[in-house]
Amino acid sequence: MSIITLTTDFGTKDHFVGAIKGTIYSELPNARIVDISHQISPFNIAETAYILKNAYKSFPNGSIHIIGVDSELNDENKHIALLLDNHYFICPNNGVISLLASEIKPEKIVEINIHDRVETIFPVLDVFVKVACHIARGGTLEVIGKTIPDFERMVELQPTVSGDNNTIFGNVIYVDNYGNSISNITKKAFNEIGKGRDFEVIANRYSFKKIVEKYSDIVDFSVPKELRQKDGTRLALFNTANYLEIAIYRSNLNTVGGAASLLGLNYRDSITVKFT
Amino acid sequence: MSIITLTTDFGTKDHFVGAIKGTIYSELPNARIVDISHQISPFNIAETAYILKNAYKSFPNGSIHIIGVDSELNDENKHIALLLDNHYFICPNNGVISLLASEIKPEKIVEINIHDRVETIFPVLDVFVKVACHIARGGTLEVIGKTIPDFERMVELQPTVSGDNNTIFGNVIYVDNYGNSISNITKKAFNEIGKGRDFEVIANRYSFKKIVEKYSDIVDFSVPKELRQKDGTRLALFNTANYLEIAIYRSNLNTVGGAASLLGLNYRDSITVKFT
Amino acid sequence: MSIITLTTDFGTKDHFVGAIKGTIYSELPNARIVDISHQISPFNIAETAYILKNAYKSFPNGSIHIIGVDSELNDENKHIALLLDNHYFICPNNGVISLLASEIKPEKIVEINIHDRVETIFPVLDVFVKVACHIARGGTLEVIGKTIPDFERMVELQPTVSGDNNTIFGNVIYVDNYGNSISNITKKAFNEIGKGRDFEVIANRYSFKKIVEKYSDIVDFSVPKELRQKDGTRLALFNTANYLEIAIYRSNLNTVGGAASLLGLNYRDSITVKFT
Repeated sequence: MSIITLTTDFGTKDHFVGAIKGTIYSELPNARIVDISHQISPFNIAETAYILKNAYKSFPNGSIHIIGVDSELNDENKHIALLLDNHYFICPNNGVISLLASEIKPEKIVEINIHDRVETIFPVLDVFVKVACHIARGGTLEVIGKTIPDFERMVELQPTVSGDNNTIFGNVIYVDNYGNSISNITKKAFNEIGKGRDFEVIANRYSFKKIVEKYSDIVDFSVPKELRQKDGTRLALFNTANYLEIAIYRSNLNTVGGAASLLGLNYRDSITVKFT
Repeated sequence: MSIITLTTDFGTKDHFVGAIKGTIYSELPNARIVDISHQISPFNIAETAYILKNAYKSFPNGSIHIIGVDSELNDENKHIALLLDNHYFICPNNGVISLLASEIKPEKIVEINIHDRVETIFPVLDVFVKVACHIARGGTLEVIGKTIPDFERMVELQPTVSGDNNTIFGNVIYVDNYGNSISNITKKAFNEIGKGRDFEVIANRYSFKKIVEKYSDIVDFSVPKELRQKDGTRLALFNTANYLEIAIYRSNLNTVGGAASLLGLNYRDSITVKFT
Repeated sequence: MSIITLTTDFGTKDHFVGAIKGTIYSELPNARIVDISHQISPFNIAETAYILKNAYKSFPNGSIHIIGVDSELNDENKHIALLLDNHYFICPNNGVISLLASEIKPEKIVEINIHDRVETIFPVLDVFVKVACHIARGGTLEVIGKTIPDFERMVELQPTVSGDNNTIFGNVIYVDNYGNSISNITKKAFNEIGKGRDFEVIANRYSFKKIVEKYSDIVDFSVPKELRQKDGTRLALFNTANYLEIAIYRSNLNTVGGAASLLGLNYRDSITVKFT
């Protein structure tokens, strides 16, 4: 039985997620349901795209990913289902898959058209779950929609590069649980454009001339523990998702804050790399 | 194997929920356990009732629902188990099931009396889980308690109607993940009392003469995207649970706020419908 | 198939937990994965130790517990796997298991050395999950590391006792979902040192001469409901984990606050018991 994952902005207090799981189990008693995230900021497509891109690959081929963020059906927000990299995605056509589909072309995309028979203001429960169960039972995408050639793109998820190839203009697309500010600049883009040149990462009024490999690289372990100044040090690194991240060593959002709050690097703020 | 659901105010940080699941798996290795919510405001029975009513129906018949909110056993708070609408509920007798039992009469209610053998200050783990596993193994309610004719009611969950049938006096019973304020006025009550008359919904100092069908109904899609004023618009609609809800279009509790904070419509505040 | 539990400070918004579960299911399609907590305060070892100690015993023997708090590998933070009380733990060697290992000696401890082949900044995903799956498939600890005789201890988790045996000096090691302040003084230590003597619990400027058995013991049920003053009363009791806890009756962190905020009893603050 395929795995069905859930990525939503529903939160975990309301009944929504429970109702979705109950409905899936009613249709597929042996389903394996995995929560990827329900804590996405309301209607935030960039966050969803980032989380999804970094989570889906860990699941087995054939997994079915339901994405319930900004999914109310209207003239400008259609519902789609697609097969990409051997995974199925069911989502609104609002750009949420552009981050993952930017690297890997979808094999097939359909615009869901079973809505004619389902009048609903809770499409994730009444439509996406139906589609997911259909796929889990081995059904094809063609049955639930008409093939479309392409999907909507979300521009802000991609950095831009100056004409002389000396500068990458990125921006913060995600702030993680530790308050680290994550840019849309990938290690791949950094290497392809930088070609080993010296560089400076500029984030607000802070500058980094080094990108560390792991957080504790900024600690000098030769200094006795009690003399070290380490917590609170700012650093740049490529994170586990291979995106350029600005972090504060051992930050804590409940107490001192993290890079986003302490350095003023919030969602959509600029992070620039200059090569020399 | 039956599904066992959990609805509590335990939060997800502490060890409570993990301990409960471990105990269930120790007794029933093949159990399917589903979290409905652990984020209920501490001791809040109205919230619990609202979440439970809207989640339980999505689960298959025979599902067993453990409700751990305000469940410390004392002279005024007994524990009950009941069968209602083909679902089992194990909960304190504090009114938490009145919202769902107001529409569907329980088939059987027992007051749990296995406590004599279990001295505990964590009854959800030590008593409710035991009862749930007993039921999941096919055990009857009679074995774990004595039949009682009725359950405690919680008055504030029901709106009142004026003598002339012209006004429904409701109040906010739930604030959801988007900050929407949800009243105890159902679409059914609205239709039965209104009988198609003109109406005005009054919530704090705001008035609504229209109830929209879906959130994006307030958007004029004929106006070009960049000229639209839509985020932040207030609206009234019947939500997915068929309760009258006051919402702010695309609200976000982490940034601008939602209806509850922006319009001053918090738990227990009045929402009134006047028919003319 | 063994149960694999997860205890981390990753939060539930980011992709980390989803990625971990996807990876486990990719290796072990029939795995049973249980979240114990992902809401631990970043890098907080005392919180982790407290949660783990109180959750693990509820799981069946043979369960495998992954602990992802402060787990970046460096010269001072090695990774270990151990067998203790018929449960497996995979964690950094940073004191996180000292609370449970203080009472029960580990049967076997190995320092994980499969890292040579895994270069990673996400060791929970890339190392701990691998080790957990290895154990779940019946593999031995010896294969993934070299046996070591002992583990790192965390001093602050243990209270101290005055030379005359008249005073226990403890401190707050955990603040729970209700804002209750939990000390490191166990009922066992209290009884062994107190031997039934009169006592005074001193927490900040508050004093308690009685330890109640359950929260509602402070309610006088003979007084009519509307005349009772009960919410907001402070009390001391041994909690479900058998630790001395200072609580506010029916506290609510979202509104009035709890013992931690109202009485000023936060993580690491003193709680003392004087016997006379």
